[in-house]
Amino acid sequence: MTTISIIGTGNMGQAISAVAGKGGTTVQLIGEDDATTQVTGDIVVLAVPYPALSAVIAERGASFAGKIVVDITNPLNFETFDSLTVPADGSAAAEVAAALPDSRVLKAFNTTFAATLSSGSVGDATTTVLIAGDDADAKTTLASVVTAGGLKAVDAGSLKRARELEAVGFLQLTLAAAEKISWTGGFATVA
Amino acid sequence: MTTISIIGTGNMGQAISAVAGKGGTTVQLIGEDDATTQVTGDIVVLAVPYPALSAVIAERGASFAGKIVVDITNPLNFETFDSLTVPADGSAAAEVAAALPDSRVLKAFNTTFAATLSSGSVGDATTTVLIAGDDADAKTTLASVVTAGGLKAVDAGSLKRARELEAVGFLQLTLAAAEKISWTGGFATVA
Repeated sequence: MTTISIIGTGNMGQAISAVAGKGGTTVQLIGEDDATTQVTGDIVVLAVPYPALSAVIAERGASFAGKIVVDITNPLNFETFDSLTVPADGSAAAEVAAALPDSRVLKAFNTTFAATLSSGSVGDATTTVLIAGDDADAKTTLASVVTAGGLKAVDAGSLKRARELEAVGFLQLTLAAAEKISWTGGFATVA
Repeated sequence: MTTISIIGTGNMGQAISAVAGKGGTTVQLIGEDDATTQVTGDIVVLAVPYPALSAVIAERGASFAGKIVVDITNPLNFETFDSLTVPADGSAAAEVAAALPDSRVLKAFNTTFAATLSSGSVGDATTTVLIAGDDADAKTTLASVVTAGGLKAVDAGSLKRARELEAVGFLQLTLAAAEKISWTGGFATVA
C-alpha cells in the first residue's frame, strides 16, 4: 500500500492531500517549518514554493533516499511575471534531481491549479495531472494515487519534459494573473 | 475589412482558411511553392513547417512590410521528438520578428491541432487560439478574425511568451505522437 508524505500545508499541499486521501492513500501532511517530524511516505511531495526547495532538501534530503520525490514548483519571477528563475535549458525538477541522486524525482501537479485538484475538473474535463520522470515505476505509483483520487494522470515523458511542464505552468499563471482565465480553470488535457 | 493571406495549403493552412472564411473574412490561400502570386492580405499567416520559414521570408519578406505576420510553427526535432531546434532562450517567432523588422509579428495557432480548428472544440470546450505579440492592435485584429469564425481567442502576452507557447505546442505534439492524447484533443483553455 503506497503512502504519501506532503511537505507544505498551503493550498497545493492541502489539495494534493485531499486527492490522495479520497483515494484511500495514507497521507502525512507536514508543515514546511516542522524540522522534527520524520517523513514516512513512499512518495514525498515537496509542496513548497520554489525558493524554499533548497532549504527543505538541505535539511531533509538524506531521509528521501530510496523514495519517490515529487517537485510541483513553478519557478517564476513573481515580481515581473515575465520569466522563469531557472536556466532556459533547465528546470526546477532537474535541479531537484541533481540534489537528490538517491531518489526517483518526478515533476507533477505544477500545471493544475489547487482549485482544479479540489473540484476534480477543469471546465467539463476531468482534471489531469501531467507527470514527467525518468523512472516508469515511480510514475505509475504516483499515477495510481492520482487516479484512485478521481483524477486522470498522463505520463508526460522523461524528466527532460519538466522544462515544458514548467513553461505550461508559467503561461497558465500569467494568464490567471492577467485575468484572461480564472484560478478555477486553466489548461485542460483532453485525450 | 480585414483580409488574410495564408501561405501553405497543408492541414493547418486549410483549417485556418476555413475559420477565417466562416467569419466572413476574405481569404487568399497560396501554395508554399507559388512564387508569383502577390500576397494581398492585411494579415499573412505563414502556415509552413519551421524548416521552410527562412526560404519563404527570403523570397517574400519585403512584401510583408506593414503587414501583420503570424508564425504558427512548432520548431521540433521531429526525428527525436525530444527537443526544440531553436535556442532554449529563444523561439521561432523571435527569429521571424528579427527577420521582418517592418512587420508586426504574432505567434498563434501553434497550440491548436488542425482538427480542433475545424471542429471548433477541444472536448467540450470551444477551441481557443492563444496569441502572443508585442503589438496590441495586431493581436486584436487577428483575434477578431478568430472569434468571427466561431472560436475563442486569448491574448497570451508579449512576443516573449512565444517561447512558452512553443513549449506547449511541443509537449502537446509529444503526447499525441505517444498516443497519450488524440490529434482531435489536446490542451483546452478553460477561462
